[in-house]
Amino acid sequence: MKSKKTLYDQLFELSKNISTLTSIEYILEWDQETLMPSSAVDFRAAQKGLMAAYIHKLKTSAKYSHLLNQLIDLESGQISDPALSPAQRAALREWRRDHLKAVKLPTSFVKTFTSTCATAGNIWIEAKKTSNFSLFAPSLSKIIQLSRKKADLLGYQEHPYDALLDLYEPGMTAARLVPLFDRLKPALTSLVKSIQASSQVDTQCIQGEFNSELQLQFGKKILKAMGFTPEDSRLDLSVHPFCTPVHPLDTRMTTRTHHDDIMSNILSVIHEGGHGLYNKGRNLEQFGSPLGEQASLGIDESQSRWWETRIGRSKSFWSHFLPLLQHDFPQLKKADLESFYRAINKVTPSFIRVESDEVTYSLHVIVRFEIEKALIEGSLKIKDLPAVWNQKMQDYFGITPSKDSEGCLQDIHWAFGHVGYFPTYALGNLYASQFFATFEKTHPDWQSRVAKGDLGFIREWLRSNIHQYGRQYTPEELVQRITGKPLDESAYVSYLQNKYKDIYRF
Amino acid sequence: MKSKKTLYDQLFELSKNISTLTSIEYILEWDQETLMPSSAVDFRAAQKGLMAAYIHKLKTSAKYSHLLNQLIDLESGQISDPALSPAQRAALREWRRDHLKAVKLPTSFVKTFTSTCATAGNIWIEAKKTSNFSLFAPSLSKIIQLSRKKADLLGYQEHPYDALLDLYEPGMTAARLVPLFDRLKPALTSLVKSIQASSQVDTQCIQGEFNSELQLQFGKKILKAMGFTPEDSRLDLSVHPFCTPVHPLDTRMTTRTHHDDIMSNILSVIHEGGHGLYNKGRNLEQFGSPLGEQASLGIDESQSRWWETRIGRSKSFWSHFLPLLQHDFPQLKKADLESFYRAINKVTPSFIRVESDEVTYSLHVIVRFEIEKALIEGSLKIKDLPAVWNQKMQDYFGITPSKDSEGCLQDIHWAFGHVGYFPTYALGNLYASQFFATFEKTHPDWQSRVAKGDLGFIREWLRSNIHQYGRQYTPEELVQRITGKPLDESAYVSYLQNKYKDIYRF
Repeated sequence: MKSKKTLYDQLFELSKNISTLTSIEYILEWDQETLMPSSAVDFRAAQKGLMAAYIHKLKTSAKYSHLLNQLIDLESGQISDPALSPAQRAALREWRRDHLKAVKLPTSFVKTFTSTCATAGNIWIEAKKTSNFSLFAPSLSKIIQLSRKKADLLGYQEHPYDALLDLYEPGMTAARLVPLFDRLKPALTSLVKSIQASSQVDTQCIQGEFNSELQLQFGKKILKAMGFTPEDSRLDLSVHPFCTPVHPLDTRMTTRTHHDDIMSNILSVIHEGGHGLYNKGRNLEQFGSPLGEQASLGIDESQSRWWETRIGRSKSFWSHFLPLLQHDFPQLKKADLESFYRAINKVTPSFIRVESDEVTYSLHVIVRFEIEKALIEGSLKIKDLPAVWNQKMQDYFGITPSKDSEGCLQDIHWAFGHVGYFPTYALGNLYASQFFATFEKTHPDWQSRVAKGDLGFIREWLRSNIHQYGRQYTPEELVQRITGKPLDESAYVSYLQNKYKDIYRF
Repeated sequence: MKSKKTLYDQLFELSKNISTLTSIEYILEWDQETLMPSSAVDFRAAQKGLMAAYIHKLKTSAKYSHLLNQLIDLESGQISDPALSPAQRAALREWRRDHLKAVKLPTSFVKTFTSTCATAGNIWIEAKKTSNFSLFAPSLSKIIQLSRKKADLLGYQEHPYDALLDLYEPGMTAARLVPLFDRLKPALTSLVKSIQASSQVDTQCIQGEFNSELQLQFGKKILKAMGFTPEDSRLDLSVHPFCTPVHPLDTRMTTRTHHDDIMSNILSVIHEGGHGLYNKGRNLEQFGSPLGEQASLGIDESQSRWWETRIGRSKSFWSHFLPLLQHDFPQLKKADLESFYRAINKVTPSFIRVESDEVTYSLHVIVRFEIEKALIEGSLKIKDLPAVWNQKMQDYFGITPSKDSEGCLQDIHWAFGHVGYFPTYALGNLYASQFFATFEKTHPDWQSRVAKGDLGFIREWLRSNIHQYGRQYTPEELVQRITGKPLDESAYVSYLQNKYKDIYRF
């Protein structure tokens, strides 16, 4: 009879095959968004569909299930072998979690869901273009019904939304989010009001025309400072910036450049660089096991937001990088550090989430959370969605979209079937700030080091506190372990208040 | 009971999955050679290994075998269903052929072969670098033994070499090649002698320094003229030029530029463009069936050599393109059409196959064919290889390599286990010339059309005569069908004689 140790390695081996196939899906996705000749789009869908089918088959195979069940009781979650390390036990907990989710969704359901979303995606593009919500409404209605069905199949304790949320942020629940966001919302809206009542920031000093190739080159310089090399990563252009975590030794980030906006590319690069460092910082030996994976979407987002907002929008960062930027773009020589810093942190309530500033960003997320939760529980009807959206925009931002394309039709997430995803964007901000408060205690001199261009100690802190553990700790455990307390909004709110009091001088 | 029609579609479906997975392998390969961060190389090997294993599993699965056997008797090759079309029968013939080959090689043998070659590849790199044949000899010895074993496993009628050759050029045999090459060899050597006895071509007019980016851009202009668009293809840089036939709607070609040699890139682009047009010209509806695949490596090479030599090295082509080239590279304005044409067709016996001219190229191939055939039949010992190589170089080219790195260590093919591959390079030349003789009859005005920049009618002739059929006809059938006679060397030899008599004026 084989020992449990050998069984663990067998499971790891199978799981590594799944991760390797998934990494190939990532390459296909990256290629499609960056370089693929456009006429290949339908064939690419066939390639991806086939890979997804093989991966699902492996994940739900009897062999996999049997192996896993010998190591951890699939029913109870009990692990019998006392020789397994705490990390291995955590890996088994996560393997079980993934497997139970995979087998709960019948192949026929997955197919229906996928094809509904494929159709919905195309309809959404047209509906957004013509700002015609009624065109998209029937598709959205189906997707909400199917998502509710998905929640029922996956199972939940309190609220059907929890089952969906848990797919993206393990352990998170509506009961936990509602009070958190209910405290965050007034803090943010009141901050927005104070800012609006103050004299406005002048962005004249960052205006200009900026060569696209030079912008891309500058992005690469920032990634180098963050710790990337051309040997372990790439930066390319795509319509929307993203990071593809192929493997710790293969990080692919993308950006886009605007000829009249120098900061859009830079902040995107730093944001994707944050995701990229999480990928690069994963434990190489654990590739293929949950111990070598990102803890959650929220934790992943905390890494990108950490770098984008806490570093990339900080005065100390630009104390080092502004002269370098001005060297490459002499048209920015008119900017002094203080006015540059204020300009890149301008706050303006606006309709579009992806273009929003640091203060209003989480409010955009809360609008979506409240709406999708209501849709799933059935307390909001699809036909009432545009009106509710616009009312919330008025209540939280003081502005009302004039058309649905800048309102409830702006995001692709629901058309993709990603219901329960949005909260991870706000959680990323909260995690980042709470982690940062601990980081500041270890590195009280961080600003002077960053001002000298040193970013390596930050990367190292993140790697040793977060990246190296993979999914060994749940997001909640990770927060508790690093910061000594459960997740709350206080660090985030006080960071924003302090920063924007200084910038807007109220 | 299911009808045969349905069975055929089921088989096609399965086969399409295999082709789709193979196309994903192509993407991984292309990515590795063009853009992949170098630290990902080991992981890329793992990705490719896993894909290869899945593909082999599908190709040899009981389900596949059973389905195929219901349509075509695997033993006898008999097809019972009278309703199947001639094309479908041809597809079944080819499916059977591939399947029988796949199942004849046990997984354990494939693994040993693959790992031996992986090791041999690394040793070959070192041996070539230090020009040390004795370092590579033990690996080569193993590969020859394994290739002989492979021939025995696959089976053959007359000569073990036939089994290997047949993997690359279906139906071709040593008994067919030996007399062909024995007629070709004296014709080529005598032509080389006539050329050497003549006054030499001056290449001064194509010398200069050439910007790499401009060279790449010019390559793209040529591909456009050949019929590619950015929507269906790409041209990128890599160490060695190649074409990846992902799918008819996704053709990826690569090239490399030399700052002091304008023609290397141009002829590579036209060569790979020839492969690319074959890919693009495949029957889209038949993707995944043998009817949507290239007929053989030799036929594929006939397409690249056709474009590179018959078009890309022709006076009529440059009558149109030289002014465009001179526009982009004014340093070439010193060249008139006649001296440019002669310069790009200079013949010089040299040691390295991949750098050789049109006349000596096939002689390089014959050296390799004679040697590998002798190694497989056991009439040549590994230890005697360098001496035999050098003697043949002296006999056929009148020159002797001073070291093995420019002799028998120059090619990677044997280290990769590709024994039996080389002849397809020479066959490509023969096929191309024999096809071209027919083409000229249909289009006696081809030169004046090409001189106006029109290449579309050539592409269309190749598509309708060759590309669209896939593997419906064997290479021999295709030659007979198009040219009305079996393959021989006469068209190739008289083309070379006429062309080089004119250039060298003997």
